[in-house]
Amino acid sequence: MDLLSPGLEPPPITRFDIEEAAERIREHVRRTPVLSLERNAFGVPGRMSLKLELLQHTGSFKARGAFSRMLSAELDDSGVLAPSGGNFGLAVAHAARVLGQRAEIFVPSTASPVKIEAIRATGAEVHVVPGYYADAYAACEERAFDTGAVFLHPYDQPAVVAGQGTIAMELGEQLQGIDTVLVPVGGGGLIGGVAAWFAGEVRVVGVEPEACPTLHAALAAGEPVDVEVGGIAADSLGARRVGELGFAIARRFVERAVLVSDETIAWAQRRLWEECRILAEPGGVASLAALLRGAYRPGPDEHVVCIISGGNTDPAQVA
Amino acid sequence: MDLLSPGLEPPPITRFDIEEAAERIREHVRRTPVLSLERNAFGVPGRMSLKLELLQHTGSFKARGAFSRMLSAELDDSGVLAPSGGNFGLAVAHAARVLGQRAEIFVPSTASPVKIEAIRATGAEVHVVPGYYADAYAACEERAFDTGAVFLHPYDQPAVVAGQGTIAMELGEQLQGIDTVLVPVGGGGLIGGVAAWFAGEVRVVGVEPEACPTLHAALAAGEPVDVEVGGIAADSLGARRVGELGFAIARRFVERAVLVSDETIAWAQRRLWEECRILAEPGGVASLAALLRGAYRPGPDEHVVCIISGGNTDPAQVA
Repeated sequence: MDLLSPGLEPPPITRFDIEEAAERIREHVRRTPVLSLERNAFGVPGRMSLKLELLQHTGSFKARGAFSRMLSAELDDSGVLAPSGGNFGLAVAHAARVLGQRAEIFVPSTASPVKIEAIRATGAEVHVVPGYYADAYAACEERAFDTGAVFLHPYDQPAVVAGQGTIAMELGEQLQGIDTVLVPVGGGGLIGGVAAWFAGEVRVVGVEPEACPTLHAALAAGEPVDVEVGGIAADSLGARRVGELGFAIARRFVERAVLVSDETIAWAQRRLWEECRILAEPGGVASLAALLRGAYRPGPDEHVVCIISGGNTDPAQVA
Repeated sequence: MDLLSPGLEPPPITRFDIEEAAERIREHVRRTPVLSLERNAFGVPGRMSLKLELLQHTGSFKARGAFSRMLSAELDDSGVLAPSGGNFGLAVAHAARVLGQRAEIFVPSTASPVKIEAIRATGAEVHVVPGYYADAYAACEERAFDTGAVFLHPYDQPAVVAGQGTIAMELGEQLQGIDTVLVPVGGGGLIGGVAAWFAGEVRVVGVEPEACPTLHAALAAGEPVDVEVGGIAADSLGARRVGELGFAIARRFVERAVLVSDETIAWAQRRLWEECRILAEPGGVASLAALLRGAYRPGPDEHVVCIISGGNTDPAQVA
């Protein structure tokens, strides 16, 4: 760790923040298990372990950040607001129900009707905003200004990033000798938390769909930049721009961001079901996809962990 | 443990046999993870953990028994034979490929075409025998007599039962303070191995579909008896008669066998997907089904483990 090296700003999230988040959320999240595979599983050299975060409450890691943020905020009767048509919306709605808070979720009209219905089913108030995520985000911010409710950002608030980082803290407890962690990247909350925890002690590599290259583009440009997003995993990894927090951490502690095609993601999804009976969403298997066709090539003795980050998909589409 | 109590025959399988089996199969099977759930998960009192054995090679616990049996047999060029239209056939075909042995699998013509094709895809020779499992079994025995190949029984051979018992040995290493283990029962190989390991130290309860009540009927009759089998889980739990080994162990170390309806099994399958993103086969969730509608009612502080024993199902049917 070079936390105190001269000339570098301290990272915006530290291990201490993540330990505090872990303490806050302990009784509300699942300690998700790890499946360690046989050597050369999937025909990939080395040793592979899968962190099964799709088994988390609401089917993705987003529950960690949602609880972490809500439990560190001062909440009153106005409750919380969040813009999301997907996993973060589900997680916030769930956390609000568990904690007895009001929640309003702003979803773009282009979001999946199934996810909108699932959010509504938890008891949250759902506002369907015509347009895309940016439109839902703007409406949500305006509403926060009007009501005083607490605004929960899907990936660019310290307590959210620290909450996602608890996955890495668990991994460190569950496995010895990790060389590399492959992390699916959307807005950068998960990889920010993971990289902040490992802080250079373990290689952290981001994986993005070619159709949603936010971190890849930001690392190339030297700052977060807008990108076009689309493709098979856009519902979970389709942020248009990586967060400031995630980028600041990634620039320091993430080795690189690799890209995978939609077709490779779909193939990884099928292979994971065939070999392990794990049914993940497209964004959730981006990490594995990077290994299957060589976007990331481990050494013969390297121990690589793939975070399987979510399972909110229609099983029939994988079958 | 009352292994040496006067008046009781020693159990046919002991912890020592299971430890030996574990040593034999170590490098060929996965140590499947455990998901420990929050208190009152699924609205059930107490503490629940799920042993995710569906993540095993070939999607079920049968791989343990198949490797255990093959690695304790003296094999020659004749290879191995097994009667099964389902999970055991898949497991034997897989083990034979890994160990470089010939395998012939005798499947009844009534077996699922998907499973038959999956067995064939591993490279095993598949004989489709007109009729039901009993017909395939008879043809397989005859072939063993003719060829000298090693006959692998799906559940009623010591090395098979000891192999399945390694699940319980793992559980004992993975979890502290288990009160009760709920085990899906077909021919009794799994529950025989699990009960032999715990040997009365942990409550072991069998769970069967109402439509496949082999152990329930045997315990009532005082000996294995033929039953009619059918229903949603018949492809994995549809043995017509519990094995002699499993019965001898169960009579001594299994508290009882409870029954669940097909409708409850299907409901448990859906609920497990909704709450945990785990997609199991009907026979694989019988254990959980017993908790959901009270076929087994745990106490308020009881720690119950459900073995989720297989995942060889069509995801589209759960969706």
